[in-house]
Amino acid sequence: MILDELVLANKILFSEKVVDAFGHVSMRDPDNPNQFLMARSIPPPFVAREDILVLDLDGNKVNNQPGEVSIERFMYTEIYRARPDVVAIAHSHAEEVLPFTVAGGTPLRALTHNGGLLRSGAPIFEIRDHVGEDSNMMIGNKKVGEAVARALGSHTVVLMRGHGFAVVGGSLKETVYNAVNTLISARVQLNAIHLGKVVPLSEGEAAATSKLHKTVLDRNWEVWKKRALGQLP
Amino acid sequence: MILDELVLANKILFSEKVVDAFGHVSMRDPDNPNQFLMARSIPPPFVAREDILVLDLDGNKVNNQPGEVSIERFMYTEIYRARPDVVAIAHSHAEEVLPFTVAGGTPLRALTHNGGLLRSGAPIFEIRDHVGEDSNMMIGNKKVGEAVARALGSHTVVLMRGHGFAVVGGSLKETVYNAVNTLISARVQLNAIHLGKVVPLSEGEAAATSKLHKTVLDRNWEVWKKRALGQLP
Amino acid sequence: MILDELVLANKILFSEKVVDAFGHVSMRDPDNPNQFLMARSIPPPFVAREDILVLDLDGNKVNNQPGEVSIERFMYTEIYRARPDVVAIAHSHAEEVLPFTVAGGTPLRALTHNGGLLRSGAPIFEIRDHVGEDSNMMIGNKKVGEAVARALGSHTVVLMRGHGFAVVGGSLKETVYNAVNTLISARVQLNAIHLGKVVPLSEGEAAATSKLHKTVLDRNWEVWKKRALGQLP
Amino acid sequence: MILDELVLANKILFSEKVVDAFGHVSMRDPDNPNQFLMARSIPPPFVAREDILVLDLDGNKVNNQPGEVSIERFMYTEIYRARPDVVAIAHSHAEEVLPFTVAGGTPLRALTHNGGLLRSGAPIFEIRDHVGEDSNMMIGNKKVGEAVARALGSHTVVLMRGHGFAVVGGSLKETVYNAVNTLISARVQLNAIHLGKVVPLSEGEAAATSKLHKTVLDRNWEVWKKRALGQLP
Repeated sequence: MILDELVLANKILFSEKVVDAFGHVSMRDPDNPNQFLMARSIPPPFVAREDILVLDLDGNKVNNQPGEVSIERFMYTEIYRARPDVVAIAHSHAEEVLPFTVAGGTPLRALTHNGGLLRSGAPIFEIRDHVGEDSNMMIGNKKVGEAVARALGSHTVVLMRGHGFAVVGGSLKETVYNAVNTLISARVQLNAIHLGKVVPLSEGEAAATSKLHKTVLDRNWEVWKKRALGQLP
Repeated sequence: MILDELVLANKILFSEKVVDAFGHVSMRDPDNPNQFLMARSIPPPFVAREDILVLDLDGNKVNNQPGEVSIERFMYTEIYRARPDVVAIAHSHAEEVLPFTVAGGTPLRALTHNGGLLRSGAPIFEIRDHVGEDSNMMIGNKKVGEAVARALGSHTVVLMRGHGFAVVGGSLKETVYNAVNTLISARVQLNAIHLGKVVPLSEGEAAATSKLHKTVLDRNWEVWKKRALGQLP
Repeated sequence: MILDELVLANKILFSEKVVDAFGHVSMRDPDNPNQFLMARSIPPPFVAREDILVLDLDGNKVNNQPGEVSIERFMYTEIYRARPDVVAIAHSHAEEVLPFTVAGGTPLRALTHNGGLLRSGAPIFEIRDHVGEDSNMMIGNKKVGEAVARALGSHTVVLMRGHGFAVVGGSLKETVYNAVNTLISARVQLNAIHLGKVVPLSEGEAAATSKLHKTVLDRNWEVWKKRALGQLP
Repeated sequence: MILDELVLANKILFSEKVVDAFGHVSMRDPDNPNQFLMARSIPPPFVAREDILVLDLDGNKVNNQPGEVSIERFMYTEIYRARPDVVAIAHSHAEEVLPFTVAGGTPLRALTHNGGLLRSGAPIFEIRDHVGEDSNMMIGNKKVGEAVARALGSHTVVLMRGHGFAVVGGSLKETVYNAVNTLISARVQLNAIHLGKVVPLSEGEAAATSKLHKTVLDRNWEVWKKRALGQLP
């Protein structure tokens, strides 16, 4: 049941264009908070039950399952370690969010009721501050993973300069919701900036809309599920 | 017949991207102007005949039909109460319209022959003026519904800051037409603003084109219907 | 054969998003230059052989075929009358072209090898100069049709303020090519204007690329045909 | 096997919108570096095994295979001649890249981890400098092909003013990867320029990410393949 939902999350994130051949989603093991479930290193749309690995918080495989682990698993281990409230994490290179990762002067922000997840802002993680000017930009070891987790802090989204973003949530469905709505928020803001001064959500509105959306996560999920399965346009 | 058309309106608004998992469309009961038909609180693309509820103008179910009523039903009750000319109403969170809801300095306006519905402007409803700074932004009670209806006034579209819009019409098909063309108008304007000074429709042109379009509503409807049913690209 | 191609042109223009429920394409009768073929007033994607009417240059049906003629047929009659070189004409409300019709300060122009059809510019027809400020903007009689034809002059495209455009060609396939590439040119220019000073095609380049493209019209046609028939993504 | 991959590359470039009815992809003959494989002059999505021609570096057919050679083959012959490291070349008229070809003031550049292929810049080839102001802009003879190859130099992408771009790689899959990511990079930059000052990749980052991506080319290829075959949305 949980495995099926994680498989479906992979397919939804692909059909909603959050991930493509790369990007991933993982969830904390409900039976052991020091473990998490994540597909072996294959494209998200190809993930099946048997591709799900169980990893510990050092990024090692707990079982003897075959399959290569993602080189970016340390983004996951360190966020799970630092944020006990986080149940699922996704990582994306979505085109509409990338502009905000390279241009700190215009922060991605909460403008609309479904963008409340951005209420406290989306900090930009600058990998150069941690591994120098010549890296391959991957979150490839524990030290960099820790730095990402620190940049995320108590926020919901952390942007990675020139790379993408990571997004968290208190459940798998909430993380998927937050991921899709990070893209939508970016698209809205990319258009809104041309219309003059904008009114962002207040702190209170962002908190209240986020709270409300958490009560109706199944509703989006069911629509995205049917689309991922080719049953809706 | 009427139920089938309302079901189809839900599917058309989904395939034309006016609504997604959220948003709705309702129509006044042709047999009783103090009642209206609206699906229970499920995603529009899933709506079937048996999901249609009959509500009175207080937002209560008239029949014993099972199914949860939308928490935003008061947007509908109060507009139907205030506007006897209105036969159908839709509510949308469409991405291309959202920028205009947060940036009052660039009003959404009638630029093209199919945008005549915007001829008198599309006022922005600011929910903070009614429920304070910390609301969940929903049109969740009669008082806020009344305020939305007042903001709409005699216009066809009312924008809701950071939330979406409501659109009305003298028939179900006209409301669907107005909804889709609100999106098209927003997309055209988002591009036109970069080209320099623009010539909007005159009052007379907006009135005359709107009048003309009301005579050919079936033509759009039939195309949108086939697309919603997967029979057209 | 000719009827089948005109039917297909309707479907191609729909799948390439040049027309939607409205818009049309017509071609001069190969057997009589004072007549032209045009579908009765139905959405382009629904057009079949039996929907094609034969009209004379006054816009009257030559045969007894049933079916309503388009109220905008005078755009066609007057262009065919004024331009003996024109074999086919299309009319579109495409979203990406509309911004250029309302903002004369940034003319649509030939920037790329497939935009050579715009080499002499695309004049904007202002209907107010002919029928006043309160029209329904349709090209609804011979006088306005003549004015459109005059505005077109010897150009390939005439923009209609707040309405759309008409495009001509020396064959049906050339007109379809010109129509699709008017949209592409508009999309390219809408992005290019943000990148600073641009280099347009020279007169000579525009003429030479246009001449070249006329020799390979079948190549685009075959791809668009397969897409219109659902055989290509 | 090689022929099948080249056929598939044609279909992938079509479904990823790098090519349409025009544009091409070729690869050096693995058995003879002075020859290359390229489809006869038909639309990329229609290419089958039997359409692949073997050409020498003068652009002549080596075998007696029927089929017209592309008039732009000299772009290929001269790049293969000048760049022994290049194994495959693609040529595209993609809409999102065209703006950068006509506006030299905003160079297309490496902003994101998948844009490392642009690390040294993408020079703009100005055909007027070689064939004057009145050409049809095609790379139609050896002299112009040589000029394109010189403009490309040691870069990965050369933009052609008002025409499109050519992109190279050390394998067929790398060239397809580079082509798709040239489009993605252009889309990201077209949005990023509105957000204020941007941080591009450093030289070191561009080199390291490019090196990394060359190790995972199959991963994108498999996703694009399934999409080209209609097995993924």
